[in-house]
Amino acid sequence: MSIAEIRKPYLLFLGDTEDELSAKTARGIAIWRPESALGELRLSDRTVSLGLQNMSLEEGLAAGAKTMVLGVANRGGIMDEAWLQTFRKALDLGLDLASGMHQRLADLPGLADQAASLRRQLHDVRHVRGSLRVGNGEPRSGRRILTVGSDCSSGKMFTALAVEKEMRRRGIKARFRATGQSGILIAGEGIAVDAVVADFISGAIEELCPANEPDHWDVIEGQGSLFHPSYAGVSLGLLHGAQAQVLILCHEPTREHMRGLPGQAIPDLLDCIEANERAAKVTSPKAKVYGLAINTSGLSAEAASEYLASTEERCSLPCADPMRQGCGRIIDHILAHG
Amino acid sequence: MSIAEIRKPYLLFLGDTEDELSAKTARGIAIWRPESALGELRLSDRTVSLGLQNMSLEEGLAAGAKTMVLGVANRGGIMDEAWLQTFRKALDLGLDLASGMHQRLADLPGLADQAASLRRQLHDVRHVRGSLRVGNGEPRSGRRILTVGSDCSSGKMFTALAVEKEMRRRGIKARFRATGQSGILIAGEGIAVDAVVADFISGAIEELCPANEPDHWDVIEGQGSLFHPSYAGVSLGLLHGAQAQVLILCHEPTREHMRGLPGQAIPDLLDCIEANERAAKVTSPKAKVYGLAINTSGLSAEAASEYLASTEERCSLPCADPMRQGCGRIIDHILAHG
Repeated sequence: MSIAEIRKPYLLFLGDTEDELSAKTARGIAIWRPESALGELRLSDRTVSLGLQNMSLEEGLAAGAKTMVLGVANRGGIMDEAWLQTFRKALDLGLDLASGMHQRLADLPGLADQAASLRRQLHDVRHVRGSLRVGNGEPRSGRRILTVGSDCSSGKMFTALAVEKEMRRRGIKARFRATGQSGILIAGEGIAVDAVVADFISGAIEELCPANEPDHWDVIEGQGSLFHPSYAGVSLGLLHGAQAQVLILCHEPTREHMRGLPGQAIPDLLDCIEANERAAKVTSPKAKVYGLAINTSGLSAEAASEYLASTEERCSLPCADPMRQGCGRIIDHILAHG
Repeated sequence: MSIAEIRKPYLLFLGDTEDELSAKTARGIAIWRPESALGELRLSDRTVSLGLQNMSLEEGLAAGAKTMVLGVANRGGIMDEAWLQTFRKALDLGLDLASGMHQRLADLPGLADQAASLRRQLHDVRHVRGSLRVGNGEPRSGRRILTVGSDCSSGKMFTALAVEKEMRRRGIKARFRATGQSGILIAGEGIAVDAVVADFISGAIEELCPANEPDHWDVIEGQGSLFHPSYAGVSLGLLHGAQAQVLILCHEPTREHMRGLPGQAIPDLLDCIEANERAAKVTSPKAKVYGLAINTSGLSAEAASEYLASTEERCSLPCADPMRQGCGRIIDHILAHG
């Protein structure tokens, strides 16, 4: 079993970061799991704020926090001595620690020993521990939705969380399944699929979203893109392991090339739909793309409307920006035809 | 740098195995790199033999051996005390050790310390050490051939080695690039791509077969199949990282289902060709399948001829069994049109 399970609710540690962008994960937790985000701990007055209640470790514990989550990245991704002192005290007082940073909590001086002797958990969610098994592609019960992308960072986590939220609002049994560090910290569980050994990609995802009731929907966070030369192996293994009946294609229309690779063209959306459907059919014979989730934040309201309308016509599928319009029409289409 | 480089020539350690099949890797070395296989070391008279000269450690060293290679698997993949004594003595006398087993040499009691103090190398080729980088898909010079498969264990290593051998016989600059443990021990270098962390699959292959002279051919050993639910992520990352202009599809026609998965059908060969060409074009726009290497060992000579002729007509590509006919016609086609 390699699925991280992090005890909630959280106290969100913002350290001394003054960069709004670096608090992205913490903000994601506050937006998508407000009931789990009890408060924020900031080391100085200049530290960014999420607008949550400011809490000391003691106040967080008194409010019921079980885990302090490092929801920020600092310069160079390295944790400094001021942070370490706070972590040590958090363990002493009774909190587990969870981090999505590259540097491991378990590698900080003395922290692993301290946690072991106090029986606290250290969750380094970018790193996978425990043994995995090889995927087998055997058909399993339950409904599964997977978000796939034309590129990296095209809204796959956001869309999966938005779909889960709207399905639950409608009284449908739905559960977000996290495959990256931010998603794992938001969900409190999951597996960082890009950190597993290559042989176990699909097996890890089969373990993440096992057989379930026939009317239960797992909404699985996709990673990368079949067309991204750096990460497509992860995307394909994830697609096979997910065994999703329903795919939602996520796209960011203002991008000029694949993320990080100026020489690499963005694939055409129809090619993306076809390639993902064909690959998914290896383990899920009826897999189909049921909608496009478009991140139009780079477009004016008017340009966004035009883009959505023309793409909807071209692809013959509902297109929506989950942020602007929500995922309601895509979910309608899934429930009517999926 | 994570590419294993093993010093040659070898003394092949056969241990006390009495099972012909378990000596497959050792036999591969003796067949494909006879100049590197100085002799064999057997612990008993009942141990299988490759027909090489029987040598003690001292005789191997006197003959010039640099590395003793564990070319067998024993029951359960566990090395026992009798083996360990031989390994210790081999290090003492001056040999490096290389193994393709799951259990690491470096984890055997005292062996890592002994090797470090004597400055010998321990090569656990199933395990990747050192840091890798993420792939970037940037075009690089040199010609590259990749063997791809309809399934696992369909002859991809054998075909790549046969192509290298025939190209060299014709005076063409060609170099086999190993991606699995047997291939690495045969070549004396390579990277076990299924053992790298998922994020680095394509990057590892870019490192394995870097830019080269315009008339130099890397012949890259493929892994798995785009259609195998357990390992397709590895296959796709390998395909993108290889940036091959030329693909050779390997197929075993008597198989009834995907290896290890009774419920999973073997893909149609035309689908295989199309899927591999489409996926390869992400980093190698002119990539094309130039021939099919068919393992007909399960067919009679007559049935094999019929199968090859009908498949050649159906796929409009040269089809040959590298074992029975060699790869000459496939190479002719590559050189004429590739």
